Amino acid sequence: MRVAVIGGGNGALAVACEWGLAGHEVTMAAPTDYPGSLPDVAAAGGITGTGQINGFAPVTVTGDDFGAALEGADLVQVVGAAFATEDYGRSCGPHLRPGMTVVVNPGSCLGALAFARAAGLPAHQDEITIAELSTLPYATRVIEDATVHVFHLLRGGLFVAALGQTRTEAVREMLAEVWPAVTTARSVWQTALQNGNPVIHPAVTLLNAALIERTGGDFLFYEEGVTQATGRVMAAVDAERIAIAEALGVQILSEPAAGVAQGYMLEDNYDTGYSTAPGFLGIKAQDSLDNRYLTEDVGVSMLFFRDVAQAVGVPTPMMDTIIHLTSVVMDTDYAADPPRTLASLGLAGQSVEKLRAL
Amino acid sequence: MRVAVIGGGNGALAVACEWGLAGHEVTMAAPTDYPGSLPDVAAAGGITGTGQINGFAPVTVTGDDFGAALEGADLVQVVGAAFATEDYGRSCGPHLRPGMTVVVNPGSCLGALAFARAAGLPAHQDEITIAELSTLPYATRVIEDATVHVFHLLRGGLFVAALGQTRTEAVREMLAEVWPAVTTARSVWQTALQNGNPVIHPAVTLLNAALIERTGGDFLFYEEGVTQATGRVMAAVDAERIAIAEALGVQILSEPAAGVAQGYMLEDNYDTGYSTAPGFLGIKAQDSLDNRYLTEDVGVSMLFFRDVAQAVGVPTPMMDTIIHLTSVVMDTDYAADPPRTLASLGLAGQSVEKLRAL
Repeated sequence: MRVAVIGGGNGALAVACEWGLAGHEVTMAAPTDYPGSLPDVAAAGGITGTGQINGFAPVTVTGDDFGAALEGADLVQVVGAAFATEDYGRSCGPHLRPGMTVVVNPGSCLGALAFARAAGLPAHQDEITIAELSTLPYATRVIEDATVHVFHLLRGGLFVAALGQTRTEAVREMLAEVWPAVTTARSVWQTALQNGNPVIHPAVTLLNAALIERTGGDFLFYEEGVTQATGRVMAAVDAERIAIAEALGVQILSEPAAGVAQGYMLEDNYDTGYSTAPGFLGIKAQDSLDNRYLTEDVGVSMLFFRDVAQAVGVPTPMMDTIIHLTSVVMDTDYAADPPRTLASLGLAGQSVEKLRAL
Repeated sequence: MRVAVIGGGNGALAVACEWGLAGHEVTMAAPTDYPGSLPDVAAAGGITGTGQINGFAPVTVTGDDFGAALEGADLVQVVGAAFATEDYGRSCGPHLRPGMTVVVNPGSCLGALAFARAAGLPAHQDEITIAELSTLPYATRVIEDATVHVFHLLRGGLFVAALGQTRTEAVREMLAEVWPAVTTARSVWQTALQNGNPVIHPAVTLLNAALIERTGGDFLFYEEGVTQATGRVMAAVDAERIAIAEALGVQILSEPAAGVAQGYMLEDNYDTGYSTAPGFLGIKAQDSLDNRYLTEDVGVSMLFFRDVAQAVGVPTPMMDTIIHLTSVVMDTDYAADPPRTLASLGLAGQSVEKLRAL
């Protein structure tokens, strides 16, 4: 299979490496503005995987030439933070061809739809399959030039959905060779809402906000940062997230249940489940509050969750609380102009039935 | 002057000691359920003051015989936490006589009115003066049997108001001999809203919640617990408090301005003002989240502030946020049945004009 990986960050390198190691022909492209590690990969002619993936995979880097990267691709994996999805969509759009399958990985906040719209695809089309994963299948970091370390490979709790729902099983089959843990989700709402980052990161960050500022994050995020109070806040966010999913006709795993299924955690609960999780040992806190744990997980994802909640009539007092507290703590009114909303996805004012059919 | 001090806690002992040292005849009473240090004072025949008050003051303890304590009293000082005010009012009510002056100290949440109602006084009467102080004039602790240490004696930022407003100056004169720093407030709204505890304590506690739980409060509450983020939350609470006061026709000092006026702080700002305040050096955090910093400052005072805000049309998104977060963190729905509200004070549905006239 020809696989194009869009993005140059930690996740993109791990995806490219693992698919390359599985014998697929891999190309990579990323915008000139944020090429990530692509120059290193180009220089090395490929990527070395360590940890739970192992070996050197040859990769063809096309720089910001998305046309060259996508030429003849069967599978396009779009790997990066939510803020980049539309940009990637605009870059890839002109080069998408009938029969291609795009997987936004992870989909956070209906990334599949955001990509499709930015790529200029019509709302209903079935020539190109656009899908998304609920989470990146790894915990991974680039540890040196063109070398990516995979700390943890997910064993489950990993879902895929295609826009329009009918092609989901086909995408799962396509991914199964490399990622057998992926199972099908009912719709992109399930993959979007299964994103657990807004459940974990803001709660732990805010209830440790002064310590993060005072020490520059010199403590263990999970082992020390998660306590009973943190757990209660996580549980309250999660209850709202699960209620939103139910209103959209999908069942999601609670965040600790997902953590256990993914192999990070041993206990399915909101406090010791995290503070004693083998998969989270030794992870330090962020060095500043100005970090994706707030700016993305609240500033993008939680605001998106709340926007959806309002559309389907689910009250979100805990999310409201976290959004307001984050805005005050960061001296930034995140709610004033949220980057991803139903409106920004062309879904403003749609009925719950229409939303469920995505 | 004959002075009856009601209560047996740290503040009550300091008040009784200081007024006794000034040559007044002091009696003390407290309920059998929570006598505090009164048995020790009875055994010692008085109270020893150390720190910023000095010497032994003879005190007559009447136990739970409030009639004996109040007999012939010119001034009755009701000293304790907000939760005790009504109880004290019920106990003192039958023994109040025309010409007496009662000072609820501190008044937190219109303690003067709560006391008057519990004492069975009619809404409008001028035979007995009921007043309140904005804050206890000390930072103080009982350090051994019948010995109270005053760490700090307030130099300013200390206000008195009498119910109905006309007797305020007379009460100030009565207190001036011992507490010359006391100045008159426009009304009990000013003394009630000048209470700064809900501005400081919940913000610092919540943004250090995980650290308090993990270490049992083994850090310095102000020097380590107050950071830029903490300061921003305090500032946001304070802005709402000041807006409520304005809607009620009174001007209050911002919390750091009060801290400077009281002599605790050198800088009038919300972060380094507190973390470097000479008056707050060395103060440890509470050993558990289950502490008055949340249970009283949110569970009573902030809920009262919000209730008043709703009556006068002031939005309180920051207080809403803190109340909800506290409820989740403590697994207790504080908003469900707040102990002190306009309704509990007989003020439900009153016009802003009527409220201003208190």
